[in-house]
Amino acid sequence: MTSKPLKIGLAGLGTVGTGVITILNQHRDSLIQKCGRSLQITVVSARNKGKDRGVDLSKYKWVDTPEQLAQEDVDVVVELMGGAEGSAKNLVEASLKSGKSVVTANKALLAHHGVSLAKLTSPQAHLYFEAAVAGGIPIIKMLREGLAANDLTSVLGILNGTCNYILTTMEKTGRDFADVLSEAQAKGYAEADPTFDIDGMDTGHKLCLLASLAFGIAPDLDNLPVSGIRRIKATDIDYAKEFGYRIKLLGIAQKHKNGDVEQGVEACLVPISKSLAGVDGVFNAVNVIGDHVGSCLIEGRGAGAGPTASAVVADLMDCARGHHVSPFSVPLENLAKPKWRNPRDSEGEFYLRLNVLDQPGVIADVAAILRDHKISIEGLIQRGRDPGQPVAVIMTTHTTKRGDIEDACTKIGSLKSVQDQPVILRRLSIA
Amino acid sequence: MTSKPLKIGLAGLGTVGTGVITILNQHRDSLIQKCGRSLQITVVSARNKGKDRGVDLSKYKWVDTPEQLAQEDVDVVVELMGGAEGSAKNLVEASLKSGKSVVTANKALLAHHGVSLAKLTSPQAHLYFEAAVAGGIPIIKMLREGLAANDLTSVLGILNGTCNYILTTMEKTGRDFADVLSEAQAKGYAEADPTFDIDGMDTGHKLCLLASLAFGIAPDLDNLPVSGIRRIKATDIDYAKEFGYRIKLLGIAQKHKNGDVEQGVEACLVPISKSLAGVDGVFNAVNVIGDHVGSCLIEGRGAGAGPTASAVVADLMDCARGHHVSPFSVPLENLAKPKWRNPRDSEGEFYLRLNVLDQPGVIADVAAILRDHKISIEGLIQRGRDPGQPVAVIMTTHTTKRGDIEDACTKIGSLKSVQDQPVILRRLSIA
Repeated sequence: MTSKPLKIGLAGLGTVGTGVITILNQHRDSLIQKCGRSLQITVVSARNKGKDRGVDLSKYKWVDTPEQLAQEDVDVVVELMGGAEGSAKNLVEASLKSGKSVVTANKALLAHHGVSLAKLTSPQAHLYFEAAVAGGIPIIKMLREGLAANDLTSVLGILNGTCNYILTTMEKTGRDFADVLSEAQAKGYAEADPTFDIDGMDTGHKLCLLASLAFGIAPDLDNLPVSGIRRIKATDIDYAKEFGYRIKLLGIAQKHKNGDVEQGVEACLVPISKSLAGVDGVFNAVNVIGDHVGSCLIEGRGAGAGPTASAVVADLMDCARGHHVSPFSVPLENLAKPKWRNPRDSEGEFYLRLNVLDQPGVIADVAAILRDHKISIEGLIQRGRDPGQPVAVIMTTHTTKRGDIEDACTKIGSLKSVQDQPVILRRLSIA
Repeated sequence: MTSKPLKIGLAGLGTVGTGVITILNQHRDSLIQKCGRSLQITVVSARNKGKDRGVDLSKYKWVDTPEQLAQEDVDVVVELMGGAEGSAKNLVEASLKSGKSVVTANKALLAHHGVSLAKLTSPQAHLYFEAAVAGGIPIIKMLREGLAANDLTSVLGILNGTCNYILTTMEKTGRDFADVLSEAQAKGYAEADPTFDIDGMDTGHKLCLLASLAFGIAPDLDNLPVSGIRRIKATDIDYAKEFGYRIKLLGIAQKHKNGDVEQGVEACLVPISKSLAGVDGVFNAVNVIGDHVGSCLIEGRGAGAGPTASAVVADLMDCARGHHVSPFSVPLENLAKPKWRNPRDSEGEFYLRLNVLDQPGVIADVAAILRDHKISIEGLIQRGRDPGQPVAVIMTTHTTKRGDIEDACTKIGSLKSVQDQPVILRRLSIA
């Protein structure tokens, strides 16, 4: 192994990029000890050259466009600009093509173009992306290396800190979604346009990468039903608690015994007895099940400068050590083509909230529709009484197919006495 | 990188060794895909050649003594015999000396002789031991690679499944220690001689390895105060719950701001709000704190054939890929000589249980002793009344030095009205 410095080009000097510089400066000596060579940024690129970022940038060469980094004398390019297209994609492609390894935190890029980028890797140019999923949590390394002796059958987790912060705050304060979202935006925990986070697509990008690594399949955004947390009310959180659950936005990927694979993003009721239920605020957590290791959970900070930079530098250390594995666990030619389970055939237990007029016969009508779809009711609560006015009715079902529950809810939603489409949440099994 | 098979010699065919064979057979194809070469056991050694282990051993060469494996035509020797001395040590030494890598699950061996064994590694012969700590949980990889960009300041965890099973069962059933231990022995969850587990030394071996990896110091059993769970009663578990805690046997290693290091094993009160408090039964969990990543927790099965074999095969995969790092995170010449904090100077909040005669003036005597040692009482409960008879008095303290609480308890224990030495448990901070 060489003991020459690892020369690094860095694109993007936001909080994460600055965090990477901070770690490389602060822990210079211990990184040399651990890797056997030094990690040296030599050239950088960022939108605003003049901005004070609190770190000394004077020793680095600047290039005007990020794409130029691919032509510089560096061993590895760190891409921290973000975005599935444009400069980020161009830079990663050009770097790999010119024989440079790439470290990126860009989940959208990888979810959309992971396979075509992986095709550009070579014995000199590898692709690392620990920071793309769950911030500082080394879940990629865990799937590709630590648990790689297993046939993994399930990977699921809380992958979006913004949603988890909102749900946790709703629970703690009893306040409703819109109110908590505004506060989160004011505090900088949610983006000005929060769509990507709260409608589940950020979780979706991360999940399809985890599913790919866990099952040895290509990341697949086309077979990924995604929903978010907009329709969750404080009342859902209260009722969930009463039933022994907490509500979390989860990315879930499963491989069934017959080989079918399914993946999706949705708000779920998680039994309070599960470790995942206790993961609060901006923390992320991922649960993995393997045939020999059993269940394994990892929890930590899913975003932020420090945790994300920690993951980027861990990748740089692997790069410096000459360690690399296939980006998606197995070589591209071995990626399996899964049989995706039709989401309508996906089985589960569900929680329903109906907004109904408080008048005789409504529950009978709803129960008849559920019966006609062969859905068995496990529990029902109608707490308030307000004759003629809308009240919440909460129902939980035994195991049923998602298609059946969706069809039934469409019919229930069209009843005159039902005010709007029912809220359907999956309920994870206690066992 | 070579694509020749990785030739493996395996010493020890108990449940873990058999589990390794099972994984290598079952996942042969995916392991080749992931490593770029096959993992092939070629020669084995075990005490009883004739025993039916449920796996086909006919294709392997047998050697009569494990030490002979070091002279066989193999790339790596897997040591699964156990024991800090004797055959296991001889085999690991001889293998490394003859240029073969070693994969071992032997925490006692590494805790006692880790540094001298690491001295025998060479560019051809590496030392892997993921399976030595916390079974299937890839905590070694997490410390040495995934979180290696951080200056780690704390590593603590539940590292012994036997103790955790006993404590969890005591809590669930209200039964006392001796009773639950007998049942655990009958079920095979505890050894016939359980000393090593329940008095904390097994946790100690694992903890000193984690402390070594986290802080870049040599494993040090000489600076490791160890206590176990023998004195815990069902009543302690009840009172702990009332205060908002659960009792867990923890290994704790910390690096303080002034550079002092401390490590120890003891039963602690863990706030119910912490993820660690919810880790039940035979599960293990480790919490790590780093300067950039913050707090990170990993939880999974800490023992058993499947989880341990999963970790052994993960090491074999690293070996097959040519991946290796310094056994104790940094090269031996860089291992720091820590300044160990005197355990008496260790600060914490504590829980005390006193067995006192129910008569006037006892609490006043106890309170006076605590005052004389500058220990501030946070709470006190004396629930039962039984004049003249022994009753339990529970006290919790604010932050104090361990030496002071120990001195005070020695004096308290010598009071005529106090029946035996107080039980002292550390109480982890809620924050």
